[in-house]
Amino acid sequence: MNSVSFLGDMLQTIAERGRRFLSPSGKEEAGAGGVEAICETLLSSHGEASGMALAKTILDRWSRFDEEQRRDFMVMLLERFGPDAARLDKAIDDYRGLRTPQALLELHSAAEPRRQELIRRLNLAPNGIATLVRMRENLLAMKSAQPDLDAVDADFAHLFGSWFNRGFLVLRPISWSTPADILEKIIRYEAVHQIDGWDELRRRLAPDDRRCFAFFHPQLVDEPLIFVEVALTRSVPAAIADVLREDRAAIAAADATTAVFYSISNCQQGLRGISFGNFLIKQVVEDLRRELPKLDTFVTLSPAPAFAQWLARERRAETSDAIDDTDRAVLAALDDPNWLSVPAATTAVQPVLTTAAAWYLLRARNAQGKPVDPVARFHLGNGARLERINFLADKSASGMRQAHGLMVNYLYKLDDIETNHEAFAGRGEVVAAQGIRRLLRADRPQRALAVLRAPPRERPVGAKTADGKGTRELT
Amino acid sequence: MNSVSFLGDMLQTIAERGRRFLSPSGKEEAGAGGVEAICETLLSSHGEASGMALAKTILDRWSRFDEEQRRDFMVMLLERFGPDAARLDKAIDDYRGLRTPQALLELHSAAEPRRQELIRRLNLAPNGIATLVRMRENLLAMKSAQPDLDAVDADFAHLFGSWFNRGFLVLRPISWSTPADILEKIIRYEAVHQIDGWDELRRRLAPDDRRCFAFFHPQLVDEPLIFVEVALTRSVPAAIADVLREDRAAIAAADATTAVFYSISNCQQGLRGISFGNFLIKQVVEDLRRELPKLDTFVTLSPAPAFAQWLARERRAETSDAIDDTDRAVLAALDDPNWLSVPAATTAVQPVLTTAAAWYLLRARNAQGKPVDPVARFHLGNGARLERINFLADKSASGMRQAHGLMVNYLYKLDDIETNHEAFAGRGEVVAAQGIRRLLRADRPQRALAVLRAPPRERPVGAKTADGKGTRELT
Amino acid sequence: MNSVSFLGDMLQTIAERGRRFLSPSGKEEAGAGGVEAICETLLSSHGEASGMALAKTILDRWSRFDEEQRRDFMVMLLERFGPDAARLDKAIDDYRGLRTPQALLELHSAAEPRRQELIRRLNLAPNGIATLVRMRENLLAMKSAQPDLDAVDADFAHLFGSWFNRGFLVLRPISWSTPADILEKIIRYEAVHQIDGWDELRRRLAPDDRRCFAFFHPQLVDEPLIFVEVALTRSVPAAIADVLREDRAAIAAADATTAVFYSISNCQQGLRGISFGNFLIKQVVEDLRRELPKLDTFVTLSPAPAFAQWLARERRAETSDAIDDTDRAVLAALDDPNWLSVPAATTAVQPVLTTAAAWYLLRARNAQGKPVDPVARFHLGNGARLERINFLADKSASGMRQAHGLMVNYLYKLDDIETNHEAFAGRGEVVAAQGIRRLLRADRPQRALAVLRAPPRERPVGAKTADGKGTRELT
Amino acid sequence: MNSVSFLGDMLQTIAERGRRFLSPSGKEEAGAGGVEAICETLLSSHGEASGMALAKTILDRWSRFDEEQRRDFMVMLLERFGPDAARLDKAIDDYRGLRTPQALLELHSAAEPRRQELIRRLNLAPNGIATLVRMRENLLAMKSAQPDLDAVDADFAHLFGSWFNRGFLVLRPISWSTPADILEKIIRYEAVHQIDGWDELRRRLAPDDRRCFAFFHPQLVDEPLIFVEVALTRSVPAAIADVLREDRAAIAAADATTAVFYSISNCQQGLRGISFGNFLIKQVVEDLRRELPKLDTFVTLSPAPAFAQWLARERRAETSDAIDDTDRAVLAALDDPNWLSVPAATTAVQPVLTTAAAWYLLRARNAQGKPVDPVARFHLGNGARLERINFLADKSASGMRQAHGLMVNYLYKLDDIETNHEAFAGRGEVVAAQGIRRLLRADRPQRALAVLRAPPRERPVGAKTADGKGTRELT
Repeated sequence: MNSVSFLGDMLQTIAERGRRFLSPSGKEEAGAGGVEAICETLLSSHGEASGMALAKTILDRWSRFDEEQRRDFMVMLLERFGPDAARLDKAIDDYRGLRTPQALLELHSAAEPRRQELIRRLNLAPNGIATLVRMRENLLAMKSAQPDLDAVDADFAHLFGSWFNRGFLVLRPISWSTPADILEKIIRYEAVHQIDGWDELRRRLAPDDRRCFAFFHPQLVDEPLIFVEVALTRSVPAAIADVLREDRAAIAAADATTAVFYSISNCQQGLRGISFGNFLIKQVVEDLRRELPKLDTFVTLSPAPAFAQWLARERRAETSDAIDDTDRAVLAALDDPNWLSVPAATTAVQPVLTTAAAWYLLRARNAQGKPVDPVARFHLGNGARLERINFLADKSASGMRQAHGLMVNYLYKLDDIETNHEAFAGRGEVVAAQGIRRLLRADRPQRALAVLRAPPRERPVGAKTADGKGTRELT
Repeated sequence: MNSVSFLGDMLQTIAERGRRFLSPSGKEEAGAGGVEAICETLLSSHGEASGMALAKTILDRWSRFDEEQRRDFMVMLLERFGPDAARLDKAIDDYRGLRTPQALLELHSAAEPRRQELIRRLNLAPNGIATLVRMRENLLAMKSAQPDLDAVDADFAHLFGSWFNRGFLVLRPISWSTPADILEKIIRYEAVHQIDGWDELRRRLAPDDRRCFAFFHPQLVDEPLIFVEVALTRSVPAAIADVLREDRAAIAAADATTAVFYSISNCQQGLRGISFGNFLIKQVVEDLRRELPKLDTFVTLSPAPAFAQWLARERRAETSDAIDDTDRAVLAALDDPNWLSVPAATTAVQPVLTTAAAWYLLRARNAQGKPVDPVARFHLGNGARLERINFLADKSASGMRQAHGLMVNYLYKLDDIETNHEAFAGRGEVVAAQGIRRLLRADRPQRALAVLRAPPRERPVGAKTADGKGTRELT
Repeated sequence: MNSVSFLGDMLQTIAERGRRFLSPSGKEEAGAGGVEAICETLLSSHGEASGMALAKTILDRWSRFDEEQRRDFMVMLLERFGPDAARLDKAIDDYRGLRTPQALLELHSAAEPRRQELIRRLNLAPNGIATLVRMRENLLAMKSAQPDLDAVDADFAHLFGSWFNRGFLVLRPISWSTPADILEKIIRYEAVHQIDGWDELRRRLAPDDRRCFAFFHPQLVDEPLIFVEVALTRSVPAAIADVLREDRAAIAAADATTAVFYSISNCQQGLRGISFGNFLIKQVVEDLRRELPKLDTFVTLSPAPAFAQWLARERRAETSDAIDDTDRAVLAALDDPNWLSVPAATTAVQPVLTTAAAWYLLRARNAQGKPVDPVARFHLGNGARLERINFLADKSASGMRQAHGLMVNYLYKLDDIETNHEAFAGRGEVVAAQGIRRLLRADRPQRALAVLRAPPRERPVGAKTADGKGTRELT
Repeated sequence: MNSVSFLGDMLQTIAERGRRFLSPSGKEEAGAGGVEAICETLLSSHGEASGMALAKTILDRWSRFDEEQRRDFMVMLLERFGPDAARLDKAIDDYRGLRTPQALLELHSAAEPRRQELIRRLNLAPNGIATLVRMRENLLAMKSAQPDLDAVDADFAHLFGSWFNRGFLVLRPISWSTPADILEKIIRYEAVHQIDGWDELRRRLAPDDRRCFAFFHPQLVDEPLIFVEVALTRSVPAAIADVLREDRAAIAAADATTAVFYSISNCQQGLRGISFGNFLIKQVVEDLRRELPKLDTFVTLSPAPAFAQWLARERRAETSDAIDDTDRAVLAALDDPNWLSVPAATTAVQPVLTTAAAWYLLRARNAQGKPVDPVARFHLGNGARLERINFLADKSASGMRQAHGLMVNYLYKLDDIETNHEAFAGRGEVVAAQGIRRLLRADRPQRALAVLRAPPRERPVGAKTADGKGTRELT
């Protein structure tokens, strides 16, 4: 307990060190001399003697680079800090000849781009990791225009995967007594249901029936990596307004039976592809169960961010397994921006839209044969079950635009998580509540049959939204 | 400041998590089922769903393995978790054909032994890193008997190098108000001048003119990685007794001009080869200067652990550049275990022994062309200067046995560190105070000359002690 | 350092204990049974066995009392828990007869109202002190209607003076990384220049040239007692807008020469009369000097909250030493609510108003012979010097209403603080800069003379505002 | 949770402040000038301006005073800082005349010795409270020689009672990861079963079935006030060796059914008479029950420190209600220092000694009509029950000397605590297990009867040991 406090002081050290060096001092600029030379020095034996200073110099310079210079820097990493080709060729020959573990070791080592060790040494700088994460964020933005930078990105991703290993992450509750500078970032990073200022943040954190948890890395002081917002309720909510309504009455946490994960947001673009969400949810479920033994239901209230786009495509397509002409006629009502206020329209649309959504979630597949919906991919991949589709659950502008107001509950049942995951990962099966499966069976027997015969059609729908803010929550 | 406290609480989480799982629960043993299968599952997609539990299972079992089983485990890692040979061959072919960055990426990836990813995933277990460090400690002990395990060790070393990157280490002062469980480890790990219990520990930590600093890793709760003991003095000490004498009078820290690093100890055998000492000394120098601006001299009082062994060899050798027959005659006095109490002997021995030591430190080289003395290699490699050789500086049994009582001061002068390091690393030059260089010049002109003509003879003297406790301090 | 961390954990305990019991459990209500009986039991030997539970019961009940019941409770404390009259009479007789220390001890003890011990025992309840402070806040509000409760209040004040002894207070910086629940209270308690929401709070805390400090009591978890807001500048500001303007450019703290205390607010009405401000300012001056050695000027920018009221009275009075008929004519301009926008008016008003303010601050006295202005009393009593009167320094509605826009700088010069305090406390002299003293001398020689002859007139002006929010800052 | 961390940092401030000023600076001594004058200044209005500095000066001087000077200081407090006699006389007259609350208030205030306010202001000094506690420790030692200092002591005791109110104390677990400087004090302050160095301390703290808890005051950084050592067991131990044996096998805490309080030690002589033990035990019982729900028995293993002394007196007395001539004959065996190793002796002694002890604990009374045994007074007063008398339970030299090896279990049964306390405090009844009561009934009917008729004889036996180390545990 006290050795913990002892170590707690550590982070003070980390942070102070970080702060002390936070603002680039700007003086060493003078001797320009080219960053490449400094990088080579850092990689040389010299790096052992004065690695911290060299690393700091490089990162400081990079921080002051303009976009052009940053691109040049990445191209330099690509072209000048790949593997040593001659050494690699020799290593390949040796391996082909000898096949010894030693030769293999050398082959692996020779094939490693020199920039990997360079990045490792850049991490020697105080607060280096924070700059490296920003560096990759910048790199990701460049990649679309310059795809050969993929090779550099792969090295960043490899190292970040190792450094941000779940074993190094720490789960922290976020509450109304969390420091304001961290809360400010929660407001900024919330990617699903926007937080309109501090009063709303307070409503999401302070009441007894609200929780929030984030993963942190001990070296990235005051930067949450991913966070989830949780509502404690007595039933599974069918609309986001039930959760976020300003005037709702809070209940005592001890009376809740259900924990609703209603928003999950990744915070660091520079860590894209390093997966935290899976661990986050499981850890939060475990912690909540320990604190509140009466909780027996763990469920999400999730967006379906690609649904409207997919549906538009189906409606335009000549033939569709998902909808027929009758459906098309009904769905035409959606083209009226005011359809929500036309009772007849909503009544007619509800069954058709819900059934289409069931198809979308259960059957629609992207080019990789995975569900089109990125949120579905995430939760199903984690072993959750598709539990319920909620009509008009999110009437906000973005909710209507992305999914015609539909939202989805995914259920995390601890005992079934492994089996569900296996079904999904191994056999591509989407585990869903009977109510949803029945929607398809009862309604569209012929199509369900068709699916059994033919492989799912590939539709690269999800790809397009993968970078959008809407799915930043689960990238 | 408070976001730091916020993050400080993190470590509480880390530690509690660690403690909660510390003792293997022992129940899952039942379904034996072979650890290899579990490792394969952990590496499979399954690992995403239940990685933490799987990793914990494997590490718990390993903890209960006997030596035989542990060896089998390592052999399994070697033989079953190397790279996929077919994939690697294809990657080599592709690379040879295409030479694209993409092909190179695949080659590097294919050449990576699968056990690297396995080890990364084992780190998912609560407190996993601590077990992995113990695992490598065990592996190092096996290697001499089974050298092909080198390939497995290389993978551990590679990952540890990344995880224990200096950017992730935190320097903490160790004082008399440090938690007892950490202090207990300081007693246990002290490798240079043994600490005889808590009273002596108190004398080394509590007085105002004593300091101690250690590096910690935020995930290895309550395990120091390396520590240095410092005495604040008003002159450079010539004997360890000046520093450690029980009845010495402490001075006020603010009055000190000199910081003496009189003991540096590595703590974790499992991290051998991951170098911390260099960073430790530089950070401590920086921190002490900030706290005590009157400090102007930073110096070690170091052992010369291989001197006696080297000298014995020179005395036995038919010819020696280091000593001549007159010297041999004088040094014969050392064979009397009581030579210390014979005034005539010590008077005669002093100049000869000191000069021989100068030769040993300045000229003697090991098989790699580096100084024979491991402590000299360490400090000179860090950019320190060989400052003074002290006769009868350590009369303890181990001091007499290792170095006939000699000790050495190395001087860390911040302005010269880079130049010194360059001279040593680049040109093999040992930078030494004039007083020491003069010993050789004045005394042995003919030999000094000889050296200019001939390359230094290789003497693998240091090799033998490299694993011994005596050099654990600087491995 | 680590024993500190160790003790740091203490407060966790305190706070958790507090939280656990925060909400009155409400069940023990049933056996109503009269709070008086429980109070008697708590005072009896029984109190030793189950004091915590009894104290908690009483405080819980009080928390649920309505105003009527709370008044009854206080009257009960007054009437039933005074001293034991018989014992006191006997003690007086003994003392008069014997005059021994023993008899005196008994006299003092017998004269102590029993409610003092009762209040001490109420503090046994978890978080008891917080409820006791709220209890006194409530009591203060009752006192105007029921002045005999003064005797009860005297006991609260006596104990609080002991418990909130400066030796038990802790100064903490308040920054943008302070927990939000504490920052929320800073917004709420700011009594001088209102903080309009979180964005403005951020502007007052986050920039490098802004500081804020508060006193806390270790037992009153998360409740600041008093706080001061500080601007770091390069000159003494003449208007509050210079300090609070949204678009001002921040300077580096290290470049500042001047620390401006521009707002001091007491937070706990229940601690009225327990003086913290004096210690707060001195401690902050000391801490800032240590952190920023370039700071050489410590000055306030203060309101003059009773000036407009005093001036109105002087203008209405038949004769006034402070203003003459010419002045009255000029000051008539103030009756036009738009005088600020009439250049001729402001030009004419400035010298007259400023001189009147000099009179107000230097000469005007209240019934106790002290300066009329409560802020002046506070800073002069602390040893500050009246430095400058600033015309149109606060054009906010409240600034115009209270002081026709005037603000005052008081200078804290460490070397003079004792002498200044002595002059003020001992001889009633207001130490002022020559510029202000000259205003009176040059301008109004005859009156200055008058003052030397006659004692200052007593004007109970300050009394009326003493309870108002405007002076809550310095009560 | 984080506002706690925020406040946690507070104590850092407290401690640093303390450390900074810890060593008297010694320079201001020069202007000697008499401490009395400085005390008067501190009490004057001046005290507001520069109280901290004045208080520090006085306490620094006191720290350097020799015993003679310290006595003079106390005499000065007695003679010069009592109440103002004239004011008090007037206050008495007014009170006798008016009998108003106002007059009473003034009477109480006038009767308060001026030194009370002086002591309050001395607490302004950094770390003042620590020096004040040492000051009283010193005063207590003087009192026997100079009883009139009682009046001064009463003022210290009064203020300490208020400052060390249980509401301000914090319970902290003491473990093997507690900072060494605090553990060092546990070794030093242990008053019941001496701790022979760090190895034994580790055995008492580190095993899973050992606990230790201490009360701290937030202002007395790193000074425990009182602590209790606890053994978790599966039965009520009958001998201290069962608890402290070096080679005993630890059990898992979760398997324990019984918590044994086997040592309670007060740490601060300067706080004598301020009672903490009662609260400590109850809080620890509560905390342990929460952590380990399987615990159902809370019991002490306590010394009977005055038993041997009482028994000697009974044996010498001409008549005794406790023992008869047969008993005397048997007990003569005790006069042989080796009686323990004579099986016949121990067999004969056991029933007689145990019965005498039952009499000692149940019937023997001191001058105040309370049980002679101070430990019994403490636990019975807390509501515990006398549970068992253990023959030859402590064979250590001090155990044999104090109580012929007897030890006692007192049982804390939460449901009965109130009733037991009431019986003891109200009616003087000792609640004891039937087994003990039967010892008297069965064995000594005539005497049991006698007791019913006559009041217990007063024997001032306990008084003599009250200051001894043996009872420091419960003073």
